[in-house]
Amino acid sequence: MASINKPNATDSRRAILAVGSLAFDSIRTPSGNVDRILGGSANYFSISASFFANLKLVGIVGQDFPKAHLDVLAKRGIDLEGLEIAKGETFHWVGEYGNDLSEAKTLSTCLNVFEHFNPKLPGDYVDARYVFLGNIDPELQRSVHKQLKKPALVALDSMNFWITGKKESLLKTLEIVDLLTINEGEAYLLSGAHNILDAAKAIREMGPRALVVKRGEYGAMLFTDHGMFAAPALPLSTVKDPTGAGDTFAGGLMGYLAHEDAGEDIFKDDTILRRAVIYGSVMASFTVEDFGFTNLLKTTAKQAEGRYQQFLKMTKF
Amino acid sequence: MASINKPNATDSRRAILAVGSLAFDSIRTPSGNVDRILGGSANYFSISASFFANLKLVGIVGQDFPKAHLDVLAKRGIDLEGLEIAKGETFHWVGEYGNDLSEAKTLSTCLNVFEHFNPKLPGDYVDARYVFLGNIDPELQRSVHKQLKKPALVALDSMNFWITGKKESLLKTLEIVDLLTINEGEAYLLSGAHNILDAAKAIREMGPRALVVKRGEYGAMLFTDHGMFAAPALPLSTVKDPTGAGDTFAGGLMGYLAHEDAGEDIFKDDTILRRAVIYGSVMASFTVEDFGFTNLLKTTAKQAEGRYQQFLKMTKF
Repeated sequence: MASINKPNATDSRRAILAVGSLAFDSIRTPSGNVDRILGGSANYFSISASFFANLKLVGIVGQDFPKAHLDVLAKRGIDLEGLEIAKGETFHWVGEYGNDLSEAKTLSTCLNVFEHFNPKLPGDYVDARYVFLGNIDPELQRSVHKQLKKPALVALDSMNFWITGKKESLLKTLEIVDLLTINEGEAYLLSGAHNILDAAKAIREMGPRALVVKRGEYGAMLFTDHGMFAAPALPLSTVKDPTGAGDTFAGGLMGYLAHEDAGEDIFKDDTILRRAVIYGSVMASFTVEDFGFTNLLKTTAKQAEGRYQQFLKMTKF
Repeated sequence: MASINKPNATDSRRAILAVGSLAFDSIRTPSGNVDRILGGSANYFSISASFFANLKLVGIVGQDFPKAHLDVLAKRGIDLEGLEIAKGETFHWVGEYGNDLSEAKTLSTCLNVFEHFNPKLPGDYVDARYVFLGNIDPELQRSVHKQLKKPALVALDSMNFWITGKKESLLKTLEIVDLLTINEGEAYLLSGAHNILDAAKAIREMGPRALVVKRGEYGAMLFTDHGMFAAPALPLSTVKDPTGAGDTFAGGLMGYLAHEDAGEDIFKDDTILRRAVIYGSVMASFTVEDFGFTNLLKTTAKQAEGRYQQFLKMTKF
């Protein structure tokens, strides 16, 4: 069994460079409404991954972004040298969920400072061995990748917006990544396939050696050269807000991969990747129990280990 | 690990009494249309369970029902003494599936001889230790149960039709059964709950000590006093017709429980029940690959073992 011991702050081998959005979110779910709470893919990813690894954040916020939150991130060992504080307002997303909580309906998106985001990697960021290209314009994802010296593992997240709107650019990005995390519906949209085996085959032929398909309350699947792995999600008594679940999942997944630091050896078999999928599911289970990252920030490594054990118990036969 | 060895024909301890429908089905799926092929819950259940156990069938067919199929059942060790051949036509169901194959739309139901079905257990049927009350009127399910002497394990299947139309009668039946298999949507309908933990708690309080929630392509969950178990479904390249998947699943499940013959000890822990859920999933995976039970009838015990191994490989971490 795996167990989480966060590496020393000076352990640069076990650091993850993460690029993505930091945002204000206004969210309506059947459990209530919240206005302008903190969110964004890089935020969820980094907090989640910070249980396992050191982080180097690349993103952009406006001058309205709360300093107190930057302190929260810094205290978790998240390097903010790559975070640009630009003149103007922070990215703002407004969305709502119906009763089944499976899909968000975007009501409005104000890109604000994010519109002119041009990520530049400062100092030792270019040496990062583990890289997460969060859900942003595929062209920006490639521009980050170009600045890297010799990454050991590059993971990508994307969504229907880019699949339908910038497919050619996304396909170029897919060619250079090792691992893709994507929702089930988006896997079908991207591949044009009608069953998950065909979809996984088609997507892996686009570039990624490993594909993780996120199935919401039904868990996740992993596809590699070594076959497939299916993990359930942990059934929960309370699910208030699924926002950020996918990025939190990716944070747990990449966090654990960096933690184990298997580098390219990760593809020799799928043992570590399978455990990483479970840690992704573990971390996501905390996020959805409350709005934003309220619950994730309160979570302890011991609680995460407890849920990992629950997954073991729930799946063994 | 488990392995299937069908008991001797004389082994009455490992026999299952199954009551349900035998039918002609006319089905449209995106893979094609079939007219008046053989089907019915008791048919799918018995063929599936016959890999593991001896069967005693209780049902009714019309004079139009093909003798050749009765020979097929008999050759699989399915006792047909309890099968009534009545004047008139066999039950006929017409249904269709959309692209996602997750739910059948019933286009017509001709009960025919089934309308006056009044199951009477012949000879040694009343001594049956394992009993499957397939998806029929809850009142008939109780009338079968009343005739039993001392069953060790009684399982029930039901559906939205009875939940909405005969809920009080169904609740009475639930009080006397040990295990319920039901679709996820129907679990919510029956319990009025909005998450699976609450639904499972409410339903288990209605009577069944064990609840199996069928989630189609997302697998199945088991709830007992010992906690929960989540199993994925096996992703398949070809899914032609999901008709009978639930009854085939129940057949694999009950078949394995009878095969292991743990009786009431089944509830001491959930080891055997977990494996039974996997065998249910294994058997269902064969059924959906072709129309009707075309593929299930061609399947060998060795192939079933192979798929059980695939489940082990697919879920381990």
